[in-house]
Amino acid sequence: MKLCTILWNGDTAAARVEGDRAVVLEGFADVGAVLRAGAPSAVASLEGAVIALDAVRYAPVIVAPSKIVCVGLNYRAHILEMKRELPEYPVLFAKFADTLAAAGEEIALPPESPEIDWEGELAVVIGATVRRASDEEAEDAIAGYTIANDVSMRDWQFRTREWLQGKTWERSTPLGPVLATPEEIPSDARMTTTVDGVRKQVGDIHDLVHGPVDLVRYVSTITTLRPGDVILTGTPGGVGHAREPREYLASGSVVEVAIDGIGTLTNRFVPEEP
Amino acid sequence: MKLCTILWNGDTAAARVEGDRAVVLEGFADVGAVLRAGAPSAVASLEGAVIALDAVRYAPVIVAPSKIVCVGLNYRAHILEMKRELPEYPVLFAKFADTLAAAGEEIALPPESPEIDWEGELAVVIGATVRRASDEEAEDAIAGYTIANDVSMRDWQFRTREWLQGKTWERSTPLGPVLATPEEIPSDARMTTTVDGVRKQVGDIHDLVHGPVDLVRYVSTITTLRPGDVILTGTPGGVGHAREPREYLASGSVVEVAIDGIGTLTNRFVPEEP
Repeated sequence: MKLCTILWNGDTAAARVEGDRAVVLEGFADVGAVLRAGAPSAVASLEGAVIALDAVRYAPVIVAPSKIVCVGLNYRAHILEMKRELPEYPVLFAKFADTLAAAGEEIALPPESPEIDWEGELAVVIGATVRRASDEEAEDAIAGYTIANDVSMRDWQFRTREWLQGKTWERSTPLGPVLATPEEIPSDARMTTTVDGVRKQVGDIHDLVHGPVDLVRYVSTITTLRPGDVILTGTPGGVGHAREPREYLASGSVVEVAIDGIGTLTNRFVPEEP
Repeated sequence: MKLCTILWNGDTAAARVEGDRAVVLEGFADVGAVLRAGAPSAVASLEGAVIALDAVRYAPVIVAPSKIVCVGLNYRAHILEMKRELPEYPVLFAKFADTLAAAGEEIALPPESPEIDWEGELAVVIGATVRRASDEEAEDAIAGYTIANDVSMRDWQFRTREWLQGKTWERSTPLGPVLATPEEIPSDARMTTTVDGVRKQVGDIHDLVHGPVDLVRYVSTITTLRPGDVILTGTPGGVGHAREPREYLASGSVVEVAIDGIGTLTNRFVPEEP
């Protein structure tokens, strides 16, 4: 099953994707509300207004997660090709909920940063309340997966020794277009990031040093994970800042992050309105 | 004026401190709700149930900030005595709202960390919605100040290159006991942290490299600050991890952080219940 959050009647609503249509799930303001009410299965057969998927305007899949936890370098092949050691512990940092944006939304390029970069990522969406989860509890707590572009202002990210200030610019991290429940993801699923149609990043989403279950278990040791919380699992090689010469997003850039079994997250970047 | 959030009738409520009594502000679930409704001045003369302050049980001053932004090394005297250069930009990291605890609350020492440390800090509480604030707008956006103990699990903090995982353990950061509006803070206000009655940290809260107005302006460049958001401004020298030999909190440790014009934040540390 695939669920999304859409703009609807001047507000947001959760919807279920059925082929090329979306069925509006009245009474659920977003996919986060569906998850807090129980499980995606509770809305599997709910009836509602039907709209064509290509007419849908999305909101972030989860509008206001209580926690967004992000993971640094986590793709095995990329770490090994960089001749670095595999990290024993996941490198974790946070984003604020206001950082999220929608699939299809035009993302503003803030004038304060000339070094805005892409990072295609698999995102884990939590469906249960867990603390100090076992592996089994962690697996059960995963409601599904979505796609993120962990857009990074590199100059701000590296101004100091903590990354937060380059990672949490307002409405800079699109999340969507849909939550896909775990059985939707094929065992050989790959992620591809393109910029203006040119392939920049390719990753095997099963090549994570710290996979989704590990991450849920690890983070839940520290703090409670709740329905609608999101874990961004890290990005593979091929970001703009590591290229020679360096590449950054510019006015009109279009970034597409595609993951098999989920879909494609597409955003165009535009100058920020003064 | 001083405001606090207390446990009241099975829930939380905001209250105004009047000498040795608290006046309950019915209809406001916490100080964050007071700030979102306008300004502390709106409740300056509101009547309500009166209780003795020494019978009050506190909640975190702000129960669920949308953002908690923390600052790394920020006390000028301490940086200079360490022979480091003054940082050009503030080192920022985040905490999740679930990290907050109350004044007077017993703080659980999680069994996963043997290296739990104190950090007394001045905390700025936001009272307006601001983005890209000027200095003047930033100053106007400060509703007041409170006290935090940025309790840090040092082994987890230094497991990786990002501090988050040592800084956001569940209910580990007490915040309170009160919000003091800016005119309550004397110009020579000092902060003192004691552990079991022994003075460990002393700081002049006006000795910050990046002061409250600077921090509000800087953070608001990146993202919107909203009423009830909190900025922890960093800790002076004297934390346990930097001592020779190192010192950490143990079962029964009592940490008091006192700031002139605000009050004293006291917490006892106890083993986490299994």
